[in-house]
Amino acid sequence: MPLVVQKYGGTSVGDADRIRAVADHVARTRRAGAEVIVVVSAMGKTTDDLIRLAGEVSSVQPPREYDMLVSSGERISTALLCMALAELGVLASSFTGSQAGIVTDTDHTKAKIVDIRAGRLTEALQAGKVPVVAGFQGVSTERDVTTLGRGASDLTAVALAAVLGADVCEIYTDVTGVFSADPRVVPDAHKLSRVSFEEMLEIAAAGGRVLHLRSAEFARNHNVPLQVRSSFTWEPGTWIVEEDTSMEQAVVTAVIHDTSQAKVTVGGVPDKPGIAARLFRSLADVSVNVDDIVQNASVHGTTDISFTVPRTDLKTAVEVAGRLVEDLGADDVTSDEDVAKVSVIGAGMKSHPGVTATMFETLAEEGINIDLISTSTIRISCIVRMEDVERAVRALHRAFELA
Amino acid sequence: MPLVVQKYGGTSVGDADRIRAVADHVARTRRAGAEVIVVVSAMGKTTDDLIRLAGEVSSVQPPREYDMLVSSGERISTALLCMALAELGVLASSFTGSQAGIVTDTDHTKAKIVDIRAGRLTEALQAGKVPVVAGFQGVSTERDVTTLGRGASDLTAVALAAVLGADVCEIYTDVTGVFSADPRVVPDAHKLSRVSFEEMLEIAAAGGRVLHLRSAEFARNHNVPLQVRSSFTWEPGTWIVEEDTSMEQAVVTAVIHDTSQAKVTVGGVPDKPGIAARLFRSLADVSVNVDDIVQNASVHGTTDISFTVPRTDLKTAVEVAGRLVEDLGADDVTSDEDVAKVSVIGAGMKSHPGVTATMFETLAEEGINIDLISTSTIRISCIVRMEDVERAVRALHRAFELA
Repeated sequence: MPLVVQKYGGTSVGDADRIRAVADHVARTRRAGAEVIVVVSAMGKTTDDLIRLAGEVSSVQPPREYDMLVSSGERISTALLCMALAELGVLASSFTGSQAGIVTDTDHTKAKIVDIRAGRLTEALQAGKVPVVAGFQGVSTERDVTTLGRGASDLTAVALAAVLGADVCEIYTDVTGVFSADPRVVPDAHKLSRVSFEEMLEIAAAGGRVLHLRSAEFARNHNVPLQVRSSFTWEPGTWIVEEDTSMEQAVVTAVIHDTSQAKVTVGGVPDKPGIAARLFRSLADVSVNVDDIVQNASVHGTTDISFTVPRTDLKTAVEVAGRLVEDLGADDVTSDEDVAKVSVIGAGMKSHPGVTATMFETLAEEGINIDLISTSTIRISCIVRMEDVERAVRALHRAFELA
Repeated sequence: MPLVVQKYGGTSVGDADRIRAVADHVARTRRAGAEVIVVVSAMGKTTDDLIRLAGEVSSVQPPREYDMLVSSGERISTALLCMALAELGVLASSFTGSQAGIVTDTDHTKAKIVDIRAGRLTEALQAGKVPVVAGFQGVSTERDVTTLGRGASDLTAVALAAVLGADVCEIYTDVTGVFSADPRVVPDAHKLSRVSFEEMLEIAAAGGRVLHLRSAEFARNHNVPLQVRSSFTWEPGTWIVEEDTSMEQAVVTAVIHDTSQAKVTVGGVPDKPGIAARLFRSLADVSVNVDDIVQNASVHGTTDISFTVPRTDLKTAVEVAGRLVEDLGADDVTSDEDVAKVSVIGAGMKSHPGVTATMFETLAEEGINIDLISTSTIRISCIVRMEDVERAVRALHRAFELA
């Protein structure tokens, strides 16, 4: 009997009706002859509401307590979904991250999975039950409740699929799949029926919100067959697949933009070994996720180092960099929140060197100034002004003929 | 250093301001030189909201899933209180029932504590922290989340106080103590500075909502010094003490009423051995809490058995009794939701036999009909019509000169 892991995001279980719709789909999947493990997020904006409440209560939020707080929303949705399944005659049992055997390190709010002891889930499957697992959370080696970072319910699903050898991991969300650009910005963006893991990783890293970055990485590393689908239309979604080198590849697959980042620049840094290492080690020590890093060529023995971070980490990043300015012998730290990133992504780019030029020409024709540039073998990203980013996405989508 | 267990009910942690006020009181208790363990309920109506949501999702609510659902509210308040304490510079750690080592049987929604393994709490105390424990919940011997029944956060507090040898267990609520009658019904009711465990048990059993019945029993059996206090005024409350036989005792201490019960009557029951046993065993098997039981004298070889149950258990009780009617050879089952109970309680009653007569005379003078009567050595209870109960309380409070 095939084993399917289905993950439902917050909008998919947003109210009582949605939970019943999900239960119905799980029941149909069972009737079609599959074993099912379900992973759920917290209902709708529950987690945001809890975070806001925490802000009202205290300006000091110890990470261990933050995790205890925000992990409660998923418990609620697991229990409610099990009740809805019970009404349909489907045996189901809810499991917290801890009960599901998801063991993590002790890095609260951003914990990493170190082990999965899925004995209780396999027992439930053997008893003919549907295990319903609380996403986004685990239990630390110190026996405390941990969370895996915002959006990491996908990771729970992918990790369970890997460990239990699932035949497919279906990520249900409020969009019907991965698009060539955000359809809210580019109305004629089209749904991709397949996208390679490599591309998906770059799409996620570039800010495409469909799939959580660490989840895509994990799925790739563990060969988990992955499909992103809509729980509102139930139509076939986008498969995330191993790259098929026998086929002709699109030069550019998608244009992705991200408005959640901010830019930090450390100016006048002495051009000598070890400086960047100290800066980024200090940022890593306080768990700031640095995205792009750009260092300009050295002029007169000093250089500037710019990097982007999630806007939520900006305050911490500026503080850490500020403390280091004197130590490093640098001039100053500046930051800019009014920026956005636009990226073009495509596995075919590896054998088509003209893409970079086309991208820069397109932005130049639109009169859009480029602030930073970073590239990988299958992605080119530019930091532009926030007010230019949607125009940039539309122009690039046209230029690479993605409509 | 004295050890104080403080329990805060739902209204005491009802919003961000209330949580900060509680944190402030905990910090003051610490500064006064005591070690503190805190037990909290869910904020305000959180648990009621979750139960309503479950009703919207499904008519079938497996008890295991119900417990997973309703236990989440306490997690939220523990984490928020720890954050508020952190802002005041007080080290604190939240603990779920499971993390606090509260091991229960597997009788979901009404689980009984079978063991307390408080190692993590004593470690936290030794590390100079305030453990903040989620009330009302534990982990079963099957490693599932259980709850101890509505209102059982008091039980969590009392049980921890007993196991850890606390010097006092303070139950903070929205009233300032135990009163001679409900002040909303009897404006000149007065606060009792001390009440014996025996009286407190009868007050709780009679429907006095100040302290949870099983908690009062547990406190008595384990000699836990208990005080009921207000978290709104912080004024001294009511001590629950061992009966002091050297003192002259009030004949009647309090008049308590309860409007949460319903009455079931099984009519025309053959008057032979084993009938009552079968009926009440069947009710116990489905965890219906039967309160008063009255069996009238046998007439023509048959009798009527009446009993009261919490109104929430009425449907189940009527179904169970109905199934037994044929088996038992009884006539029928009738039920009445429009009833209420009024009780007079007093340790001095043991040596003052006139109390019963005074009670019945008082009700008769008010023209209030008595439906059922039950008594203990220090309590007399009458079931009356719902619309008569407040008048009965006021008349009895006057008659026994409690103002």
